Amino acid sequence: MLDETVEMGGSMSIRFFNARIMSMAEAGVIIEGEVWVQDNRILYVGEGKDAPAAPVWEREVDCKGNLLMPGFKNAHAHSGMTVFRSLCDDYNLQDWLTQEIFPREAQMTGEDCYLLTKLAILEYLTSGITAIGDMYLTPETIADACNEMGMRCVLVSGLNKFGPPLEVMEERYNKLNGKYDLVSYKMGVHAEYTCSKELLGAVSDLIHKYQAPLYVHMSETKAEVDECIERYGITPPALFESLRLFDFGGSIYHGVHITDEDMEILKKYGISVITNPASNAKLASGIAPVGEYLRRGIPVGIGTDGASSNNCLDMFREMFLVTALAKLKENDPAAVDAIKVLSMATVNGALSMELTDADILAEGKLADMIMIDLHQPNMQPINNIAKNLVYSGSKLNVKMTMINGKILYEDGRFAKETDAEAIYAEANKILERLR
Amino acid sequence: MLDETVEMGGSMSIRFFNARIMSMAEAGVIIEGEVWVQDNRILYVGEGKDAPAAPVWEREVDCKGNLLMPGFKNAHAHSGMTVFRSLCDDYNLQDWLTQEIFPREAQMTGEDCYLLTKLAILEYLTSGITAIGDMYLTPETIADACNEMGMRCVLVSGLNKFGPPLEVMEERYNKLNGKYDLVSYKMGVHAEYTCSKELLGAVSDLIHKYQAPLYVHMSETKAEVDECIERYGITPPALFESLRLFDFGGSIYHGVHITDEDMEILKKYGISVITNPASNAKLASGIAPVGEYLRRGIPVGIGTDGASSNNCLDMFREMFLVTALAKLKENDPAAVDAIKVLSMATVNGALSMELTDADILAEGKLADMIMIDLHQPNMQPINNIAKNLVYSGSKLNVKMTMINGKILYEDGRFAKETDAEAIYAEANKILERLR
Repeated sequence: MLDETVEMGGSMSIRFFNARIMSMAEAGVIIEGEVWVQDNRILYVGEGKDAPAAPVWEREVDCKGNLLMPGFKNAHAHSGMTVFRSLCDDYNLQDWLTQEIFPREAQMTGEDCYLLTKLAILEYLTSGITAIGDMYLTPETIADACNEMGMRCVLVSGLNKFGPPLEVMEERYNKLNGKYDLVSYKMGVHAEYTCSKELLGAVSDLIHKYQAPLYVHMSETKAEVDECIERYGITPPALFESLRLFDFGGSIYHGVHITDEDMEILKKYGISVITNPASNAKLASGIAPVGEYLRRGIPVGIGTDGASSNNCLDMFREMFLVTALAKLKENDPAAVDAIKVLSMATVNGALSMELTDADILAEGKLADMIMIDLHQPNMQPINNIAKNLVYSGSKLNVKMTMINGKILYEDGRFAKETDAEAIYAEANKILERLR
Repeated sequence: MLDETVEMGGSMSIRFFNARIMSMAEAGVIIEGEVWVQDNRILYVGEGKDAPAAPVWEREVDCKGNLLMPGFKNAHAHSGMTVFRSLCDDYNLQDWLTQEIFPREAQMTGEDCYLLTKLAILEYLTSGITAIGDMYLTPETIADACNEMGMRCVLVSGLNKFGPPLEVMEERYNKLNGKYDLVSYKMGVHAEYTCSKELLGAVSDLIHKYQAPLYVHMSETKAEVDECIERYGITPPALFESLRLFDFGGSIYHGVHITDEDMEILKKYGISVITNPASNAKLASGIAPVGEYLRRGIPVGIGTDGASSNNCLDMFREMFLVTALAKLKENDPAAVDAIKVLSMATVNGALSMELTDADILAEGKLADMIMIDLHQPNMQPINNIAKNLVYSGSKLNVKMTMINGKILYEDGRFAKETDAEAIYAEANKILERLR
């Protein structure tokens, strides 16, 4: 039950005791002890210490041996696509986008995007996701939804030749960065195949002006890569390098169809790859070479992508898919083991989104933390908790989700300010209009 | 909350109203209405009818628009392997079995198997699994565990040249069939590679004596198939056909590395294939050709395999993997769609286990039924529920699991006769001994 004193807007001091703690300072290492949270920061992580040093607790939580760990970072999402869940499945990416998605998106309003993002946030909370990298239509209303519901959000521009012009991206960059504590805004483009070379050149000028990293869908399908080579004679990463779009780092989303030379480019510029295994599988796009990225020291984070191509927004499913698909791809059952996957789902995602202030549980870090219920049959017996999380975990194991020091989900219930049924009703209304 | 009047042992008349119902009589079709259960059978499925025809209800459940459907059939499991969860991961199948599993299994007692099966049953209930096909060490104690906890179970012999002799299988066949309402026993062998040709010949005589179907792990890895060809000059299915082991039908488990000729054999004898996608992926064994089986009219069911190679016992994860891996394997996003997967997880599994009395929701059928919570964000908006289940569902959506007319799990709680913490404690004790 949610403690009646927990208000989403309230400033709190909370002591979590009798916990197992996987801080992710060193991946997979677990200690027994306490985590103290004051306002939006972590005050203490350790075996426990004397009361005199402690603040007055507004709440003390007996964790009963359950696990505290950093929340998952969903480093690539299109939250507003929840309305398309199970509406247009079983297409390949190109047909799905052009025939089913783009015509419907043309009818979506900023208000739709706001409400549909709220629906996605509910699901993120049930899956222990405490930050998202969100590329979708109206960043202003996505920011409002995240701010209202307490979700940490890195907005990413999806600039392309059909949508709002470059000037809007620059305006949003200046307006949305700093507007809300929980929200930042990054420059990005939708993809090579939805931008002209001129537009990409202008984006390059802009990121050089601001010395800003760039985010982009890249090398998701074989067709996309083939068409880029046909157009420019080089692969998408080589094109972006030639246009100096990688000069300040950033991330590519998907990175499924990648050459050795592409990998060298990514490595050279410190680009992260965000893998989206469920979406890539469901659209039959392929399996990203995650093991090879990691061997080369290219950081890989994890994203759910949107609810239309996935269709759920569940980091547990993504984590198992990362390791299972890597094992199949490399024909090696030891490929990309559980510890690596946990790092990808937490610290690597944070690195990609420049959220390194919220990556691990440590004194002074932002209090983005989840509690994993080990008193569920899928977590028993307690042998190797890190492996259990990746190989066996599910949403049912998320006992609590805290973002910025606030408990937004606990024991299957959302914070009382959150009316899930009202959000469902609005989403169904939008579905009726766009179906 | 569990209604205080619901006792596992009690005989009940329950009316479920205000429900969506997917009976699986026709896959994916959903009506709105009521399901009535009396004792262990379904009394009525339909839009509702007048009260006079109804019995006195001991409980009436307002389903609030949630979905009632047949429980999932986990058609291949080794429940007692829960102790090995996350104990020995990241091996290939042959090394994992011979170096890690077999030596530890040699130390397991019937009591261990009983307790560890109980742990698995807890997890099955959280995942809406209402029947299991279980091949493990001591069928007598597995039967006891299932009978006590109310799980429907088809025991399958795992006969091999290292374990109890053929006579024990025949004795168990006669003793365990009919001992408990919920439990039956099938003849089976562990695999070609753990049996001599003489033993397989003797098994053939026995199944002909009883006109019984046969169950077996088959063509799970490439190495297994290659070794069989080296030994006998033919593939495992061809060997089993030549020994007349398929004369009365049955099922093969896994069926990953299969030729066209193998498929013709399976089709000819009406053999089902039980696919175990998570286990096959985690052990890097490969992807079963599920789409091709279905095109040829070979029924495919789904199994979790054991907790050591999977590591969770979750039909939602298996269902998504079946479709996602098929799409990748066939490079076709339309491959093995959600409706087909739902049939596999319910009616095909029941067919494989000869549980056709518990396959769909219909008058007179056994009351093995689950309720899916649609008031969760991953099921919203309500567009296509069948697709939502397969592409987006999780254990968090299982609101109730009923087996044989008894509610064993509801709103996150087990029936009050079930002491989950005591089962966890026993499993941890066994782990300490076998680690």
